[in-house]
Parts: sequence; C-alpha cells; structure tokens
Amino acid sequence: MTEKANIGVTGLAVMGRNLARNLARHGHTVALHNRSETRTRELVDRFGSEGDFVPTYSAREFVDALERPRKLVIMVKAGEPTDAVIEEFAPLLEPGDVIVDAGNAHFADTRRREAALRERGLHFVGTGVSGGEEGALHGPSIMPGGSAESYASLGPLLEDIAAKVDGTPCCAHIGPDGAGHFVKMVHNGIEYSDMELIAESFDLLRGALGYEPAQIAEVFRTWNTGRLDSYLIEITADVLAHTDPATGKPFVDVVQDQAEQKGTGRWTVQIGLDLGVPITGIAEATFARSLSGHAGLRAAARGLAGPARTPLSGSEAERFADDVEQALYASKVVAYAQGFNQIQAGSAEYGWNIDLGSVASLWRGGCIIRAKFLDDIRAAYEAEPELPTLLTSGDFRKAVEDAQDAWRSVVSTAVRLGIPTPGFSTALAYYDELRAERLPAALIQGQRDYFGAHTYRRVDREGSFHTEWAAEQRAEHPA
Amino acid sequence: MTEKANIGVTGLAVMGRNLARNLARHGHTVALHNRSETRTRELVDRFGSEGDFVPTYSAREFVDALERPRKLVIMVKAGEPTDAVIEEFAPLLEPGDVIVDAGNAHFADTRRREAALRERGLHFVGTGVSGGEEGALHGPSIMPGGSAESYASLGPLLEDIAAKVDGTPCCAHIGPDGAGHFVKMVHNGIEYSDMELIAESFDLLRGALGYEPAQIAEVFRTWNTGRLDSYLIEITADVLAHTDPATGKPFVDVVQDQAEQKGTGRWTVQIGLDLGVPITGIAEATFARSLSGHAGLRAAARGLAGPARTPLSGSEAERFADDVEQALYASKVVAYAQGFNQIQAGSAEYGWNIDLGSVASLWRGGCIIRAKFLDDIRAAYEAEPELPTLLTSGDFRKAVEDAQDAWRSVVSTAVRLGIPTPGFSTALAYYDELRAERLPAALIQGQRDYFGAHTYRRVDREGSFHTEWAAEQRAEHPA
Repeated sequence: MTEKANIGVTGLAVMGRNLARNLARHGHTVALHNRSETRTRELVDRFGSEGDFVPTYSAREFVDALERPRKLVIMVKAGEPTDAVIEEFAPLLEPGDVIVDAGNAHFADTRRREAALRERGLHFVGTGVSGGEEGALHGPSIMPGGSAESYASLGPLLEDIAAKVDGTPCCAHIGPDGAGHFVKMVHNGIEYSDMELIAESFDLLRGALGYEPAQIAEVFRTWNTGRLDSYLIEITADVLAHTDPATGKPFVDVVQDQAEQKGTGRWTVQIGLDLGVPITGIAEATFARSLSGHAGLRAAARGLAGPARTPLSGSEAERFADDVEQALYASKVVAYAQGFNQIQAGSAEYGWNIDLGSVASLWRGGCIIRAKFLDDIRAAYEAEPELPTLLTSGDFRKAVEDAQDAWRSVVSTAVRLGIPTPGFSTALAYYDELRAERLPAALIQGQRDYFGAHTYRRVDREGSFHTEWAAEQRAEHPA
Repeated sequence: MTEKANIGVTGLAVMGRNLARNLARHGHTVALHNRSETRTRELVDRFGSEGDFVPTYSAREFVDALERPRKLVIMVKAGEPTDAVIEEFAPLLEPGDVIVDAGNAHFADTRRREAALRERGLHFVGTGVSGGEEGALHGPSIMPGGSAESYASLGPLLEDIAAKVDGTPCCAHIGPDGAGHFVKMVHNGIEYSDMELIAESFDLLRGALGYEPAQIAEVFRTWNTGRLDSYLIEITADVLAHTDPATGKPFVDVVQDQAEQKGTGRWTVQIGLDLGVPITGIAEATFARSLSGHAGLRAAARGLAGPARTPLSGSEAERFADDVEQALYASKVVAYAQGFNQIQAGSAEYGWNIDLGSVASLWRGGCIIRAKFLDDIRAAYEAEPELPTLLTSGDFRKAVEDAQDAWRSVVSTAVRLGIPTPGFSTALAYYDELRAERLPAALIQGQRDYFGAHTYRRVDREGSFHTEWAAEQRAEHPA
C-alpha cells in the first residue's frame, strides 16, 4: 500500500457508508472497515467510482492504511458495541491518533471514554451527527466534542462534508469531552418538542376547524413561507398531503397513532432534571409519545366523557389558523429557550465553555430542526452571549408578546373542545411562571417547613428559618 | 448483658431517635448505636424513661446486644454513608440476620445492596418511612421491601409502630428487594404533584378572586370537610392562616418563593421515563420547583408582557372557588392515577407483584399524602386489581366526568388571566389524550419515517412499513 488514507470509517451500515461516501466525494481518501466483509465490498462495488476508497479486511490493515495522526470514525451502535470497537482499535493506535465516535452515545459514556483514552495518549472525539441518512451523504450538521488539538486535524475534514448555510459549514468545535454528544442530545430533545407542537397544531386545525389533512398541508405550506420556515414544517406538509396508495385515504389516517422513540428525548429530560433546568416542553413531548404507545390504557379510557367538539365558526374560525400559527411560534420559542438553557447549564456544570451562537449557527442546516428561526437565535446569542433566556431577547420578546393573545386563545379553545395540547399548554405555563412577580412556591416552602422542618428563607432577612408549627405560639427560629 | 434487645437502631439523628423511641414506647427493647457517643447518651438521658433502651458504644457491642435473628435498623444519609454503615456491620452478623435501611435510598441502590447481602446470607430490607419526624415518633407509614422471610420477623415490630387507620397498620410487605423504596419514591413524587396542585389552587384563588391568604385558608378548611380531606390541605390552611409575627403580614408573603427539593421527585420522573410511564403531573411539579429557584432567570423575565389580570366578578366569581375545588379534585385523581400506574409498571418490570390496594391502604395514615381519598383508591384496586387506570374506576370516573366542565373553565380562566397552572393543565391534557379516539402521534410516525426511515405500522395491516418519501412515486414497502 503506497498512498495512505486521510481518514477511516468502521461500521458501514447506511450512516457509516454515507459518511464515507461524503468524505470521498470531497476528495478525501477513505479507508473502509466493517465487522463483516460484505458491506465493505458492497460499498466499493456500488460507490467506488465516487472517490478514493481503501477497503481493508482486518483491524490491523485498517489502522495501517491511515496517515498519522490517524483519524478513525466509528459508526456502530451506541453502548457496548462502541466500547468493543474502541477496545479493538485502541491497542493498535499511537499517541496523537484520534478515535471519532459518530454514533448517538450518551455524553456521560463519551466523557468516560475520552478520559480513559486520554490516559493512553489517544484523542477521543464524541461527535453528534444529525440529518439522518440523507444528511450523512449530502451534508449533515456535525457537533464534535473532544480536545481542541483533535479538532485541529479532524475539523477541516468534518467541515468539508458538513451542510453549508451562507457559505458557513454546519460544524464547529463544541467543547471538551462530552460536549458534542450533549449538544446533539439536546438537539434531539428540541426535535421531540418541535414535532409535538407541530402535531398538536395539526390536531387543532383538524379538531377545531374540521379541515382534512390535505387542507392542513396547505396551511403548513403557507406557514413555511414565513417565520416558521423549517425542514420539519416542510416535511409535515408532504406527509399530510400524501394519499395512501392502497386505500386512497389520507396517509396520516392509515398510520397507527403510537409514536416511537429511540431514547435521546428521555436522556434529555433525565439530564435536565439532574441539572435543575426546567425543560417542560421536551418532557411533555417525550411523555406524549409514551402515552400514545399505551394501547391498552388508551382503549380502556377511550369512553371517558369529553365536551361536545363543535367546530368553530364565524370570525373565531376565520382567525383560528392564524392564531395557531402564533401559538406554534411562541411555543417553539419557549421550546428552544428551554433547550438552549439546558446547554448553558451543561456547559457550566462540565466547564465546556460552549458558544451558544455557534450551536445555533450549526443547526441552521443539515439537521432535522434546521430552520430560518435558528439564524435569529444565532444573532440573539452573538449579540448577548450570556442571555438568560431567548424570551427576553429583542425580536423574540416582541414576537412572543405580540403572539400571546392568540396563544391564550388557542389553548383556551383546545381546553374547551377537549383537544389535548400538552406542548402548547406547558409552554404557556412556563411563560407565565417566568414572568410571575411571585410564585406559589412560597406556599410549598411553608408546607415543607410544616411537615418536614425543611426551613425556609424570608424575603426581608438573610438566613434560614423554621416555624414551630405544632406549638401554640408558632414561634419562628433561625435554623 | 443479660436481656437481649429485640431490635437495634444505628444513626440517632432526629429520624432515627424518633423511630427508636417509637419502638421502645411499644414495649420493644431497643439497642442504640451512633457514630458519635453523644447522641446515644442524650437519647437515654432525655427519653430513657419511655421504654427499654440498651445503649452501646461500638459496632461489636451493638451487634452482641441483639437477639437472633438480629434486626438492625440503619437511619443514616442515603448513598455512601449507608454503604459504609452496611460494611461496618455486615461482617459481624450471622446468616438470617436482617439489616434494615430506613433512609431515602434510591431503589436501584437497594436492589444492589440486597443482592450483595443475600450472597452473604443476610437479609436486606430497604424500607420507605414517611411522615417526617412526627410520623417517626407517633406512627409513620412504612413500606418495607426485601424477602418475605425477613418480613416474618421484622414485620410485627414495624406494624406495631406504624400509624393505624380503622385499626389497620399503615405497614405491609411491599415486595422483594427494592420494591419498598420504589413505592416510597413514587409516594414522594405524588406528594410533589399534590403540593403543586394545592399551590396552584391558592394562586388561582388569589389571582382570579383577589382573596387574601386568610380567606383562602378558610376555603381550604371548607374543602377539608369534603372529598379533599387530607393532611396536605389541612396544613395548607394552617400555613395560609398564619400571620408572620415579625411583620404582621401573611406568613406566605414573607417566605421566598423558591421551592427546594431533595431529589426524590427527580428520581420518580427519571424512572418514569425509563419505564415509559407518562407521569406528567410529577414532572411538571418537579420542574416548577426548579424554575422557582432560578432567581436570575426570573428577574430577567419578570417584565415580559402578560394579559390584564382583572379579577373575576359576578356569577363567574361566585362559582370560581367551587370550580377550583373540582379542578383540584380531578387533577389530583390524574396525579394519583399516573403514580399508581408507575408502581404497576415498576412491579411488572422487576417482578415485584405489588398489591396496589395494599399500597393505597398503607398511605391512608402516617404519611404526608394521607387522605380520605386513599381509601377510595384502596377500594378501587381491591375491586379490580388489574385496573388500567384509576380514571376508569366507577366513582373516580363519575367524579372526574362531573368535574370536567369546571376543570376546563378553571384552566381557561388561568390561561386568560396569565396565572400559571402547569399542574392543572398537564392533568387535563393527560385526560384528553387518554380518551382521544386518535392522537396526532400518527403524524409524528410519518415525520420519523420521512426524515429517518424509522418505519411505521398501519391501522389495517400487520407489519412495519416505509414510504420512499424522496422518490416521485412515494411507494410503500414492508420494512
């Protein structure tokens, strides 16, 4: 073997294969490796003409095919398979080489692996890759963690294959160790929330106006020409406009209404809880998916009484679709505000120093939540990197304040008609909690002091206090 | 030493001390041990006349003081301190002896400890104890896990000291290994939810009617004579009626409105996510506490625009308090329905075979969520042990269906006035999701198939399917 490969990919299922092809198409020589040889041969047979591939059939051969420092991308299942592949290759590598995990690992695993490999002189880069199969081939959004040093050699290749928006690659160094996988996790959490809000919008337009899916597709197409312009709105319109060839019915009506999930939404909420960041939109979206899958429970509850669902009429009906657009926009700002606050909290907790504007920038293209909207988020964080919440940033603030009447009206209508909107409702509750002068949390502190002597703080004096609730006098003492 | 102790308690801070006193008051001879001798001496000095205590001052002496099989209650901090104490005593014990962890351990830790000690021939009982300091002394609700064999010797002592309702002790064997701590965890989660709903009721009565805390205390006292009769409603009335001696203001107004938490609400939600059980009420309550504590974020957001908060008037005002009672009741049924479903799911996952009626029964007294209501839950599960949800059980079903108009009206009013009710809103959304003929989850499955080829199922045929969304024909294939 004379010419060394610039980078290698091991794990050649569709995501790995497409990343390898994308790299080769950008002029990089790509070493290939897979546990079974078939996939390697198939890739070269079918796509060999797209660029320079170096097929290899053993771990040793794969490693030897790579130029130094070696850059080796693992694209296998998260969890034990990833550990197994790392253990297969790490002993063959030399100090300074870079192992890249492009799968959907939990950031805590990435932190553990990075620390262990650092001890052995190797760089470990856990990177988020979003955009599915098509993105992997044509330009994904890429969120690499790991050391700055690893990014110096790896970054240019990843930036080459990433999606581009206004000439800027949707790839940037996120921060040390698990930062990349953390940000990818929150991306997926936001994706859950965004999808739930869109689904509720569909359900509202259908339930309150009696629109058919094809009509609703048209509404979404109109929205997609404005501030909601995004990949998810675009594909939603396609899905809603699609007619099932077998039955002639709207496609959405022949699909079982049980949403599945692969776990990253759940992780996001669990970590949000650990960090103490209220990410209620992601939580409601995740639970809504779980609930939809409980077929037995739903069958048992289906007969529970609800209100008469009389479709809206007159002026209320006329403005309803526009009201839903406003409610969706405002709820979406809340969902993103919560998600970015979670990244901010993770960054503070783990010392990652993540640039939120840069995160927004690299989500503008390639990934599932790509949207015009993200350019506004990028601008907001560039103007004010320590922004406490997107909701108080100039344009978002104005847009949400302007939308609030419609938002309240839509939630009210949903409640009245019995159309479930857990996502819209929690977003509005979050908005109203954030802006509240006083929250009834004071009463909760009083209850906790009463039953558990957990103490409370006062608004007018420093320190912790406890009231003797059981005593006649109910005296207060510093605690 | 001639007479052996029936049971021992190590860790004599207030909870451990009160449990020891409670045992002694019931005629059991109690061996005492504490890391520092002071607490042991103090207990005997102050409370020695209440019963038979055997103070000991070393691990060896403590173990030797106990009759066989030894029953040794650990009441120390959860986590490493518990492991340390177990490791201190386990080597001194003999097969058949029983170590009882009465702290707030995570049930997964309890499972690990039980398995490890079982290997060494020892019984390990993780038990939930609810009721705070007062409960520990006068009769807590006790939720022991562990082997049936351990309960045979330990159970009678625990039943002696537990609260009694209609002569029945609020203590029963929950199930193997971590079952007791799991049930205690869910108890606390439900407690979070219940407290949040009560706090929202207070906030609504104040915000929509302009009532003073003392007036609201009276409303709660009235509610406490009906179906909402419970310890939490009772103490809430006390807290709201209390005037701060230092300022003459309502107590609740001088308390900082930042709710704290010790982590069991968070655990409950995290485990709910793992089990795929939608426990949105507990999630919203937990996040509401987190949110209240983000002082900087709240300060930044306080100026966000809201609607005019004009107090209600006329007939709307007249019926509002009653509507809130109905909304609170319905939301509370949802909170408990979700919590019991989580216990059901945990029981199935870990093979615990938990009797839900028995759980409801032992929460009727001693614990923080004790309420008349729990007797109805007990009856519901006794009548139908496999009940899919409390919402479909006879009386609850009728009560919630009867309450739904008021419930919708209250949430609508809250939304219109800008009073945050995340707990009420999510409970209502859950109700409407459960009873929905179709959920927009079908659209989410369509989106997932579009961007990630995640496939979907159809309502009319078995199997998984994928549509070629990118192709002109959009053909469907079995996947």
